[in-house]
Amino acid sequence: MKEQEYRRIEEYMKACMTDAAHDREHVYRVLRAALKIADTEPEADRDILTAACLLHDIGREKQYADPKVCHAEAGAEMARRFLSELGWDEARVSHVSACIFTHRFRKGREPASIEAKILFDADKLDVCGAIGIARTLQYQGRVGEPLYWVDAKGDPLPGDPGEPASFLKEYRKKLSKLYDRFYTPAAAEMAKGRREIAEAFYQAVLQEIHLTD
Amino acid sequence: MKEQEYRRIEEYMKACMTDAAHDREHVYRVLRAALKIADTEPEADRDILTAACLLHDIGREKQYADPKVCHAEAGAEMARRFLSELGWDEARVSHVSACIFTHRFRKGREPASIEAKILFDADKLDVCGAIGIARTLQYQGRVGEPLYWVDAKGDPLPGDPGEPASFLKEYRKKLSKLYDRFYTPAAAEMAKGRREIAEAFYQAVLQEIHLTD
Repeated sequence: MKEQEYRRIEEYMKACMTDAAHDREHVYRVLRAALKIADTEPEADRDILTAACLLHDIGREKQYADPKVCHAEAGAEMARRFLSELGWDEARVSHVSACIFTHRFRKGREPASIEAKILFDADKLDVCGAIGIARTLQYQGRVGEPLYWVDAKGDPLPGDPGEPASFLKEYRKKLSKLYDRFYTPAAAEMAKGRREIAEAFYQAVLQEIHLTD
Repeated sequence: MKEQEYRRIEEYMKACMTDAAHDREHVYRVLRAALKIADTEPEADRDILTAACLLHDIGREKQYADPKVCHAEAGAEMARRFLSELGWDEARVSHVSACIFTHRFRKGREPASIEAKILFDADKLDVCGAIGIARTLQYQGRVGEPLYWVDAKGDPLPGDPGEPASFLKEYRKKLSKLYDRFYTPAAAEMAKGRREIAEAFYQAVLQEIHLTD
């Protein structure tokens, strides 16, 4: 992709994502991870992938404003309009739009092309490891969810399914269960080390809570 | 301390700390850590220490409301009034109040008694390790500080002193430098393992950002 075209897509992404620095950090991490995965998938079209990564979360602010909106659906539509206006042909526009549409896990919405699979994996990698833990904690700080809840005696609760939202519950329910299903072997390999640091961090939190460290 | 007296002090703490579950979690962690440290300091008065731990952050909401207020000063005064009304004698009231006054690091405000030193160390331990990282990230999520900043090309910045606030900057400036000065040998020992997981987490964040993991 020519530098000038990259810049125009990037500028559109920035114009759509004015809310939070963390959303843009995420976009660039996903792009870098996707291009690294693409190094092991020779048939992947790097221009399609680059556009799809840069634009994959541009529907976020619509979802923040109205939680009934799915940011993957909204973003797929926004990207379609933007890339058409940029002069991309219909086949490539549809390809990028489909990658964005399937990057969010939903039943019956499996990523089909190799570029869609790479975007899905790169986006998922960013919920893994230390970065995944850090993003979860920042989000929970923003919405006021604690590390864990305490019972009437002040003793920590473990984060069982029946409890209100907390970091311990989120780790057990979601963050610990990310590592099995990736579409690309390269992403599965990158996830291995990330699983170790995430689990070590969770275990350390437990030990420090209970003074068994 | 009698169960009933503990409950009355705890109820007052809860009445003062209605804002956030995380503040109460912290109070109980500090209390448990302090009592563990006290096991190695036979001269420590566990009733003084328990009251000081339960009440050490009761001035927080005054500081949230007006950042010019020092929560240690405000809390020391609130604890003095409350414990006097509870019927504690002047010497014990002053002892607890002094512990609270010196628990926040300020020049010329060194903790003097063994109970004050234990409270200081237990409170500092809670900024160490995985819990310290988690509390920092939750706070940064609440006030909107990112993991790191990116430059005009989208490349991550390292968290140098001149940059705006971020997790990378906070770790380098503060969280990495906590581990040298504790008043009690038991706290210094507990901090060692916490230093390792905190540093491992920070290194993993860096590696995941730069895809060197």
